[in-house]
Parts: sequence; structure tokens; C-alpha cells
Amino acid sequence: MAERSPLAPDRFPDMPEVAGVRLAAAACGIRYKGRSDVMLAVIEPGATVAGVFTRSAMASAPVDWCRAGLKGGKARAIVVNSGNSNAFTGRKGVESVRLTAQAAAKLVGCKPSEVFIASTGVIGEPPPAHKIVHALPMLHQQATSAAWLPAAEAIMTTDTFPKGASRIAQIAGKQVIINGFAKGSGMIAPDMATMLAFVFTDAAIPARVLQALLAEANARSFNSITVDGDCSTSDTALLVATGHAAHKKVSRSGDSHLRDFRAQLEDLLQDLAKQIVRDGEGAQKFVTIDVAGAASEVAARRIGLAIGNSPLVKTAIAGEDANWGRIVMAVGKSGEKANRDKLKIKIGGVLVAKNGGVVPGYHEAPVAAHMKTRDIAIEVDVGVGKGRARVWTCDLTHEYISINADYRS
Amino acid sequence: MAERSPLAPDRFPDMPEVAGVRLAAAACGIRYKGRSDVMLAVIEPGATVAGVFTRSAMASAPVDWCRAGLKGGKARAIVVNSGNSNAFTGRKGVESVRLTAQAAAKLVGCKPSEVFIASTGVIGEPPPAHKIVHALPMLHQQATSAAWLPAAEAIMTTDTFPKGASRIAQIAGKQVIINGFAKGSGMIAPDMATMLAFVFTDAAIPARVLQALLAEANARSFNSITVDGDCSTSDTALLVATGHAAHKKVSRSGDSHLRDFRAQLEDLLQDLAKQIVRDGEGAQKFVTIDVAGAASEVAARRIGLAIGNSPLVKTAIAGEDANWGRIVMAVGKSGEKANRDKLKIKIGGVLVAKNGGVVPGYHEAPVAAHMKTRDIAIEVDVGVGKGRARVWTCDLTHEYISINADYRS
Repeated sequence: MAERSPLAPDRFPDMPEVAGVRLAAAACGIRYKGRSDVMLAVIEPGATVAGVFTRSAMASAPVDWCRAGLKGGKARAIVVNSGNSNAFTGRKGVESVRLTAQAAAKLVGCKPSEVFIASTGVIGEPPPAHKIVHALPMLHQQATSAAWLPAAEAIMTTDTFPKGASRIAQIAGKQVIINGFAKGSGMIAPDMATMLAFVFTDAAIPARVLQALLAEANARSFNSITVDGDCSTSDTALLVATGHAAHKKVSRSGDSHLRDFRAQLEDLLQDLAKQIVRDGEGAQKFVTIDVAGAASEVAARRIGLAIGNSPLVKTAIAGEDANWGRIVMAVGKSGEKANRDKLKIKIGGVLVAKNGGVVPGYHEAPVAAHMKTRDIAIEVDVGVGKGRARVWTCDLTHEYISINADYRS
Repeated sequence: MAERSPLAPDRFPDMPEVAGVRLAAAACGIRYKGRSDVMLAVIEPGATVAGVFTRSAMASAPVDWCRAGLKGGKARAIVVNSGNSNAFTGRKGVESVRLTAQAAAKLVGCKPSEVFIASTGVIGEPPPAHKIVHALPMLHQQATSAAWLPAAEAIMTTDTFPKGASRIAQIAGKQVIINGFAKGSGMIAPDMATMLAFVFTDAAIPARVLQALLAEANARSFNSITVDGDCSTSDTALLVATGHAAHKKVSRSGDSHLRDFRAQLEDLLQDLAKQIVRDGEGAQKFVTIDVAGAASEVAARRIGLAIGNSPLVKTAIAGEDANWGRIVMAVGKSGEKANRDKLKIKIGGVLVAKNGGVVPGYHEAPVAAHMKTRDIAIEVDVGVGKGRARVWTCDLTHEYISINADYRS
């Protein structure tokens, strides 16, 4: 495995139990030797589920399966493997998912459609059902409420560290737990670096409401990060609410009792999303891009992602070059409204450009010093409206080329 | 200057005269030492002009100027400088363009709006009018009908070779010449690698018709290439028709007498476009992507560009890795309709995937051998319609990172 990213957090967080969820992981030899590669989450009856998925027209068989299962709104198990994405595998891929779901359903005593499946790894190779099905009874037996770290480790591919986060939220005066773990590295690589995230809470929230909360928080977290702009065939984020916490009933996503839960959920997803960026392939710098003055939040996010996806911006950051002209270029190519003659750019909090030009008497030294740090802050005001968004990315380095030019070999 | 690209053509082509056009170049010290950086084209009265430009919301002052001038449909001079893009330069930039146009107009005896201006180089630096204006009288005096190579050299920035092309076309039985030269390297870099092209013909074609011909050929040439997906603030392609050739009058772009001219123009622009890709920053491989079976030509082009812009596809090509899964991913993320279960992929003419999976008994050796060559051919059929397009790109190498991570220093 590659060395731990220089941007990695110090350690995996402490994660409390989430009542109604047990986890287990095992090494099934799908692709890797000497490490775990299958994860099972067993969920007690009564839990609701929400999910968001890749927008790829080439979505994998597990993604198709989850999309269909989501209509029922209930989850009893989640099975995830790394090493093989079961994407672009035709009918065999569909069959592999079905066999896995049937086996898990039999063990936990539910319908196959209440089993959710995710796979990450090489595209187009024979799907791994038999190895997973073989391991499921043992996983089911061993599942515990404490195995968050092993679960996070089992879903890793090119990740250099396991990613987890935990938050406590209040719903109508009662405390609930939200735990999540994720993987992703080249955000968004079709081979091995799909983005997956699994989040569990003991809150009691109807599936429809849970879906609205997840979609909203997802826009401001996983859909606000980019490593290389490539989008996987397998991206999946699932949110399960076991309903074990004894709080007052909530029935609308706008319910004021959900205000803190919303905020904590968004914060947790952002934490995981930022960890994915911090594990971006070859990343040496973590970049926060704030866009203001856009026509809408969606427009602001697109402008932020245009900056965050620009190879020229990303290589300038890798080179510690305060090359703000490339930010102007990226704003211009975003396709969103921007007023050239009102554009404002700050780097590391220092105003470098305004009113369509560099600031009078611009002094590069403090900006150049900021570019040498690990955490780069870019702020842009495009001068047309009130839309704001924050986007996270990393730099584009020689190491990215090395990792990806020589990946399968 | 960097070493000549390994993908460069052997030499600059022989270019005949185009009656009604004279060219000159000079070293004005705008940014570079010891090389030419300003080009003047003097055009005899009566010429028509067409132009296409960057879609950037941050377009440079010269782009704004050309767009306005195009309404008149007439051109008497073109002034181009390298080293400073006069982009994001506010009112000073506008003033710089006006001063340059006025000076050139006075020399050739025309309206300033009949002078077209293009600039390529660093963004946001004080615009270079005074140095250009100072050089114009000498340039005007020295202009000759033979100076195609010096003109092509003067507009280079990070280019490693000058780019020119010439074609002969028949209009209603009479021969006309089309000559063009271009620059561009990181297709599309905001600093120095803007794409510029200037094309001259002695054909007699009304401005409105010329514009239709240019727009059509541009879609299949300059808008069908990508190096890094970044889009400059200054991209400009101008087509001037002097009308000196004595052919039958044409008044519609659909005129059958224009059939050969159309074809030759498209061929010439593709030649220049491919030369730009061959000079892509750090390029080691030239990649042709053919997309078929798309909903439309536009959809096919978008799918081709999604493949051609994917960092994961481009790094795989750099690594000589026959990683067709990344092509599946790129098709999926294009946003265009594609049928996963009918998708076909060929690499180097060898079928690797069809019907939603790898071909039975897939043998990688011939594909791996193709990946080791300089010219890579990718064919994709997305199985939804009859739309076709061809797109050209290059690989993404360590050298790209080196060039761009350390560009201004």
C-alpha cells in the first residue's frame, strides 16, 4: 500500500455504538492479499434508508440494485466489497448482486430487496459473488456494534487511510448518534477509487424525509469535492436510520426538531468528504474554494468545481505558484454567469484582484507565502448575485500521474 | 524554449502567396528576449472577415474588440502579439486595444474597426500597446506576401514548433488558395497557451457566408480538440477572404460551388488543430477518438471530449496501459445518452468490449502493443443513434505537470 497521505488526520475517530447496527469485516481474497475486503452491516428490523448514487450512464450492477431497493425505503443489511467493482459486467454482474443479496437476506431474515450492495475495484472483471456468499455466514455471526474501523478498512482500495466520522445531534431534546465511514481517493476513479459512504443513525426518521436530508447534505459535501473530475460508475452513499432513539416523531424534512440533525449530518458528510480529498491521489495540498456573488448556490458550486477541476489551477497550486490568472480563466470557462469587471479574488485572505484587474500595488509576497502552506484558501466573488458555495479539492502532482499512468500493472 | 515536441511534423509547409495579403513580424521585447513577438497582416481593401472566439465569461479586451469589429464584416489589418494576453486588464486593456487599432488603421488607411487584434501571454499584466504601436510603421513597411513562417513564429508562446497549413480549393472551376497559421500548446492555458488561428484565402465570399463556413469547420476542428480541458480567455480564429480570385459569385453557404472550399477549409483547420494537439504540453502520444452511435453529432463530440478530457484516460495512455474501463467511465460521465448494454469499444482497431462487458476470450496482447505506439486510436459506439464525431487529444504526462506547476517562475 502507498504511504499514508501527508494530509491525513492523525487517527481514526472514536465511534460510539449506533443502537440497531452491527458490523463485521473479513478477508475474502477478492483481489488483495492479506487484508480485509468484504464488509457486512446487519441492521435490526424497522430501519429506514436513503441513498444517492453516481450520475454515470454506465452505472454498475450494484448501483442499479440499490436504486431499485430504495423504493421500499427499508434496509436490513449492507454488503460491500473492495477489489472488484462489478461494473460493466453485463448479466453476470446482475446475477452476482442477486446471489449476494439472497444469501444475506436468508441470514438476516428479510427480503433480498432490503439488502443493499456496493462494490469498488477494477471494472469489467468477473464479479465476485461466490467469495462474498461464502464469507457471509461467518460475517453475520461475528458482527458487533463496535467494528467501525474494520468496516472502514475493508472498503478501502487505493485509499491510504480509513475514513470515519461521528456526530451527536439533538432531536426534540433527545440525543441521537450519527456514525459514518467512507472511501475514495482519486475521487472518482473507475478502477479502484469509487466514492462510497455508509452512514448510520439511531434516529427515527421516515425514509422519504431521510432521503431529502441526505440529498441536501450530499450536495454540500460529496458533490462539492473533486480530485480529478472523473466520475465513477459505482459512487454510492447510503444513510440508515434504525429508529432506536426514543425521540418525538418527525414527519417532514422541514421540521424544526430536525434542525440540529440536519446540521450535524451535513457536518459529518463534509468531514468524510474532506477526508476523501485529503486522500486524493498524489495530493500534497488541501484546497478550500469559496465562491460568492453567483446567480445561485448551484451556480456557485459549478464555478467552484470549475476552479477545483482545472488542471492548470491544480498544477499551479502543486507548484506553489500564486497564479491567480488561472483562477480568472477557470471562472470564465465554468459556463455560469460572472461579471468580469466586478470579479474579486482572494488567496489566503489577501485580495489579489478586483474590478476586472489586479489590485493596485499588488504585493505578491504574502500570497506566495500562503501558497507554501498545506491548506490553501481561495475566495472568489463573481459579482452577479447572492449565491454561495464551498468546494474542496487537492493539487495535481507528479504523484497523481505516477499512480494513474501505472495503475493496473 | 522547450525541446521540439516528439509529435511535431517534420517541417513547416510551403505556403504560396494569397493575393491581397502581406505579412510581417518583429521582436518588440514584450516579454521574450531574442525572438519575434508581434505580427502584422495587411489586407487590401475589399476583403471580408469571419471569426469565432472563446466562450469564456472572462474574455480578453482584444476578443471584445474583434467581436464588435466583426459586425462590419470587413478587415484591413490584423495585429497579434505574444507575451501578454491583455486579459483581465480592465479599462487599460480596452485603451490598449484602441490605441493599437488606431495606429494600424492610420497606416493602412482604414477605420479602426477594420483592424483585428489578438493577444496571447500572461494574464493581468499592464497591456503592451506602446511597444506594438512603436513597431507598427516598420512592420507595415516590411510586410511581404511570403512571410508566413515568421508570422507563425511571432505568435508562439509555449509552442515548441510553428504551425501552418495550406490548401488549394476549387470554386466553380477556379483555383483559390487557403493559408492558415495557428498557435496553442496547453490548448488552452490562460497564461501563454491560448489558441489563435489566422486563415487567409483569395476567394471572394460574403462575410455572412464566410462566417457560416468558419463556424461549421471550427466545430469539427478547433472545437474538437483538447489538451487539458481548460479554456482560454483569448481564443480567437479569424478567416479573411480577399476576393482577389476571379471565380463565379457565391452568395449562400449551401452553394454547391462551395463544396470543395468547405471541405478544404475543414481539412486545413483540422490540420492546424491536430498540430496544436501534437504540441500539447508534455504530449508523448497523439490520440484520435471516434465516437459513433450517439444521439447527434454534438452529443458524439461531447462524449469524445469527455474521453479526451479525462485525466484517468489520459494518464492510462501515458502509461501505455490498455485500461478500457476508464473509457467506459468517461462515456458514463459525459452527460450524454449512452446505452451501457450496447456499448462497443475498440482500441487500435481491436474490439475489447461489447454488449455491456469485455469481449469473450479478450486477448490483451495486440491492444497492449498498440498502446506502445505514438498514435493511439480509440473507437466507441454508444448504441443509441446515428451521431458521429472525431476528437483529438494527447496523453497527460509528468512533463505536463512540470511545465504547469512551475510555469511563471
